[in-house]
Amino acid sequence: MYRTHTCGELRLDKKGSTVTLAGWIQRKRELGGMTFIDLRDRYGITQLVFNEKTPESVSQNLKTLGREFVIQVIGTVDERSSKNKNIPTGEIEINVKKLKILNSSLTPPFTIEENSDGGDDLRMKYRYLDLRRTPVKNNLLLRSKMSHLIRNYLIEQNFAEIETPDLMKSTPEGARDFVVPSRLNPGQFYALPQSPQIFKQLLMIAGFDRYFQIARCFRDEDLRADRQPEFTQIDCEMSFVEQEDILELFEGLIKHLFKDIKNLSLNDFPRLPYYDAMDLYGSDKPDIRFGMKIHEMTKFLKGKNFKIFDESEYIGGICAEGCGNYSRKQLNQLTDYVKRPQIGAKGLVYLKYNADGTFKSSVDKFYTTEDLKKWAEIFGAKAGDLILVLCGKKSKTQIQLGTLRLEIASKMKLTDNNIYKPLWVIDFPQFEWDQENNRWHAMHHPFTAPKDEDLPLLDTDPGKVRANAYDLVINGVEVGGGSLRIFHQDLQAKMFKVLGFTKESAEEQFGFLMNAFKYGAPPHAGIAFGLDRLVSMFAGLDSIRDVIAFPKNNAGRDMMNDAPSSISDIQLEELNIKVNLPKD
Amino acid sequence: MYRTHTCGELRLDKKGSTVTLAGWIQRKRELGGMTFIDLRDRYGITQLVFNEKTPESVSQNLKTLGREFVIQVIGTVDERSSKNKNIPTGEIEINVKKLKILNSSLTPPFTIEENSDGGDDLRMKYRYLDLRRTPVKNNLLLRSKMSHLIRNYLIEQNFAEIETPDLMKSTPEGARDFVVPSRLNPGQFYALPQSPQIFKQLLMIAGFDRYFQIARCFRDEDLRADRQPEFTQIDCEMSFVEQEDILELFEGLIKHLFKDIKNLSLNDFPRLPYYDAMDLYGSDKPDIRFGMKIHEMTKFLKGKNFKIFDESEYIGGICAEGCGNYSRKQLNQLTDYVKRPQIGAKGLVYLKYNADGTFKSSVDKFYTTEDLKKWAEIFGAKAGDLILVLCGKKSKTQIQLGTLRLEIASKMKLTDNNIYKPLWVIDFPQFEWDQENNRWHAMHHPFTAPKDEDLPLLDTDPGKVRANAYDLVINGVEVGGGSLRIFHQDLQAKMFKVLGFTKESAEEQFGFLMNAFKYGAPPHAGIAFGLDRLVSMFAGLDSIRDVIAFPKNNAGRDMMNDAPSSISDIQLEELNIKVNLPKD
Repeated sequence: MYRTHTCGELRLDKKGSTVTLAGWIQRKRELGGMTFIDLRDRYGITQLVFNEKTPESVSQNLKTLGREFVIQVIGTVDERSSKNKNIPTGEIEINVKKLKILNSSLTPPFTIEENSDGGDDLRMKYRYLDLRRTPVKNNLLLRSKMSHLIRNYLIEQNFAEIETPDLMKSTPEGARDFVVPSRLNPGQFYALPQSPQIFKQLLMIAGFDRYFQIARCFRDEDLRADRQPEFTQIDCEMSFVEQEDILELFEGLIKHLFKDIKNLSLNDFPRLPYYDAMDLYGSDKPDIRFGMKIHEMTKFLKGKNFKIFDESEYIGGICAEGCGNYSRKQLNQLTDYVKRPQIGAKGLVYLKYNADGTFKSSVDKFYTTEDLKKWAEIFGAKAGDLILVLCGKKSKTQIQLGTLRLEIASKMKLTDNNIYKPLWVIDFPQFEWDQENNRWHAMHHPFTAPKDEDLPLLDTDPGKVRANAYDLVINGVEVGGGSLRIFHQDLQAKMFKVLGFTKESAEEQFGFLMNAFKYGAPPHAGIAFGLDRLVSMFAGLDSIRDVIAFPKNNAGRDMMNDAPSSISDIQLEELNIKVNLPKD
Repeated sequence: MYRTHTCGELRLDKKGSTVTLAGWIQRKRELGGMTFIDLRDRYGITQLVFNEKTPESVSQNLKTLGREFVIQVIGTVDERSSKNKNIPTGEIEINVKKLKILNSSLTPPFTIEENSDGGDDLRMKYRYLDLRRTPVKNNLLLRSKMSHLIRNYLIEQNFAEIETPDLMKSTPEGARDFVVPSRLNPGQFYALPQSPQIFKQLLMIAGFDRYFQIARCFRDEDLRADRQPEFTQIDCEMSFVEQEDILELFEGLIKHLFKDIKNLSLNDFPRLPYYDAMDLYGSDKPDIRFGMKIHEMTKFLKGKNFKIFDESEYIGGICAEGCGNYSRKQLNQLTDYVKRPQIGAKGLVYLKYNADGTFKSSVDKFYTTEDLKKWAEIFGAKAGDLILVLCGKKSKTQIQLGTLRLEIASKMKLTDNNIYKPLWVIDFPQFEWDQENNRWHAMHHPFTAPKDEDLPLLDTDPGKVRANAYDLVINGVEVGGGSLRIFHQDLQAKMFKVLGFTKESAEEQFGFLMNAFKYGAPPHAGIAFGLDRLVSMFAGLDSIRDVIAFPKNNAGRDMMNDAPSSISDIQLEELNIKVNLPKD
């Protein structure tokens, strides 16, 4: 061992002992005739001191030392004259007797401090240096700790961790697969798993009762800021359970994490049916750290000769507390905001409840003062509040209101990142209509069990069928989701049919699963959490990138080693493939 | 929840309680007017009993039940009249009052018992049924338990589990990569990791100090019985350590596993330099559960006019205790065995130490009785023993003797699978000569640090350079291995040069690692264990296949879902590749 102690370990009780430390030079300062070095390792920082009594052999070397050099020192633990209360080792320093340079370092391309001066691209290229920075390092250590807490909790609950294959069968349903040419099977390809969904269901059929896996998953999607081509999922499945069992057990897991990591004791998570979430928050992942719920105003506001309202399927609004003093300019900005193509509203109607008790609205010529007063009452508005109203097709308008609600909350700074408000969104629709392909699409996935009472609707009105599906949402972020699964072959076959599979294509893609259902499949259900997202939430980060050791950029490239790259003709030939670039 | 208890849980103390169980029908027996069902789940088997008092509604259903049906029953816990001491629930049975069929089952294609009547292919095709069998199920539960024990041990020792990318850069060095075409980067490919080697070294440079990962690895090799295209590695790396630190810490891990799982307290593991292992056992992974060490006889047996010996670089032998009574036929069989092309010996010389104290040898006309006696003495042979001698080129002959030693041990049943004899093989050669490509090849990998004292030999006699590399061997199986790493860029550059890399190719493939070495790389070292192999050893299995939930066959196929498979033209086009099958 190159050291007797780490750089985070020594305290005053070791005063006078001779110790050996090894680490990186964080900082070197000269002060009078003395030199101070902050020596850093994963565990902390210890101050080294060199003075006139330091042996000549050491002092000589001292001059050559620069930032990020790796050194080993032997010295005695002294009490510091000016103590540093900010670090645990701040009461001591090491009076250095021997010094060995283990490795030198070029000047790093950016400063390795809490806040670096390096741009994103540079830090990604030198990721191994960026990872030396305390906040980035701590993110990965937090991830390691959370993974371990999760495993301990689940194993305590009789879950077995079972590894499923990464080289599996390509199933075109869902997102794009990454594929892997098989050299031993010319012209054929494996796919990397988008999730271990089918394997975990097979493990339930195999009788494993409680399975989990912290599993790498892959999706070949066009990348956005917060997506990675590979990501990690806490993947779980249980047999002989009902929805209530799943919600309870995994609510326990999330509470356990908050207690252990943040010392927060969370209340029981509310449960909100999907349609209520849409009605009240205009989102299936509502942020409930604040209220500002949506009120439907369709009946109340129609029939007063305001044509746009009269022709709308739905009218709804939110009340922004204390925003009654918004200027015309601010209101115009909000109008522009909702009219952006990503949101797509036609316009924004407002009702100001002035501080003096009067009302001002963009549509007040259509409504009496009495009307306006009632209108405000419906929202529970007080003097000084601002009511914002949108109209149009119901589902679209609700989502627009949901987006506006978040925008206002952000302006009003209602979202405190130290407050956590989880909830379960339940009773999702089984299907959503795929306009483009003119067919029903599974909202969760084709293995989700519909609610028993909605089964007859499968034939008559699929859009109305509710699924036994649930999402865990925290502060407006979906961190997990799952469902009860279909476990009878007839129902699964019917589901594929509604989803537009021919008998043959269902058989080709999922035949082995359908076959497995014939041999005593138990009732089962599961859930999966995005580990990257969960950790980034606990780390207080907006992006998942900084909780991943070696992330890819938005083009799917590893900036450090420049993957992907071209491969040799020999490799291509062995794999029986050719590169086939599009002609310009 | 579909049950109040599992099928492995109920004991006599619950006598009289009403319980609900759910599970699979393992067996149904009729005896007199009674029916008995063994109900199975992951946790055990509970006997259900139906008699004349069973409600009519239940008895009716009873007739339809077959093997592997999934049922739920409500009943009372009764004391059994004839107890079954072989199972933990053997003192009770459930007197069934209510029965619900949760799912039916076709008759399974093979029996789901300890020993199945199903052939290998059939069991692989219906893997989800094979996994229901207790021994197969237990293998996977053992694997889950071992993974957890390993994680706990390492985390206790301050290791952080850090996930490294699966989509990485292809490096032609070593085995063949599996590659993944990148849709977003036309004509370019990711590679799946053969191991996280480079990433874990970068994590050391990043200062993580102690890293581990239970990591999926991929190698596109021609498959043998005990190889899988994807396998799992316990991958570890530490900074500021010397070889001794690694050996101690990981010897501790292995001892911990044996103690916890097998209640065995192992002695300290012996350490055997590579060349001693070859001299004494003719193998770098010697099975030391038995002796039968190799004795070199070159000096002693040469110069007696036996031409074959006289012309040999090396002569060596082993003594098979108590095999002096081998018949001519048995000796001929042994001769045939060593002459098989896989072993390649030219012939076998024997010396029998007869029970009456006389000697008989296939070469006794060249040696006096006195010679034969001394010969026997060198081996410590007693009357009744058999000495077997091979000759030829030293390295080749030693390996042949090692193989013969194992064959004899197997014939003599010297290898008790309940005895575990681990050892460290150390001081491996840095290089092996690659005859085919006429160049040096890294015996471990190009990042392994040579012994300091052998550094001068890099220029003069690379074949003599010893590496700071170590393997953990148990009962003749290599379960892990690792090395101290090079951490200075100059030495790494030199290593690539000796290995025949041009400056450009080293730069292209490993430039980012060489670059990282310039910014303060700490001394570091690591080790990796094959989890599949380790678990199979603990499970007492010869093959790793049965400790993998969904293994592939020797053609790399998943027999259950028939992966790999062809993919659509649309997929190929999006990926900018074409299938390019060889012409017949």
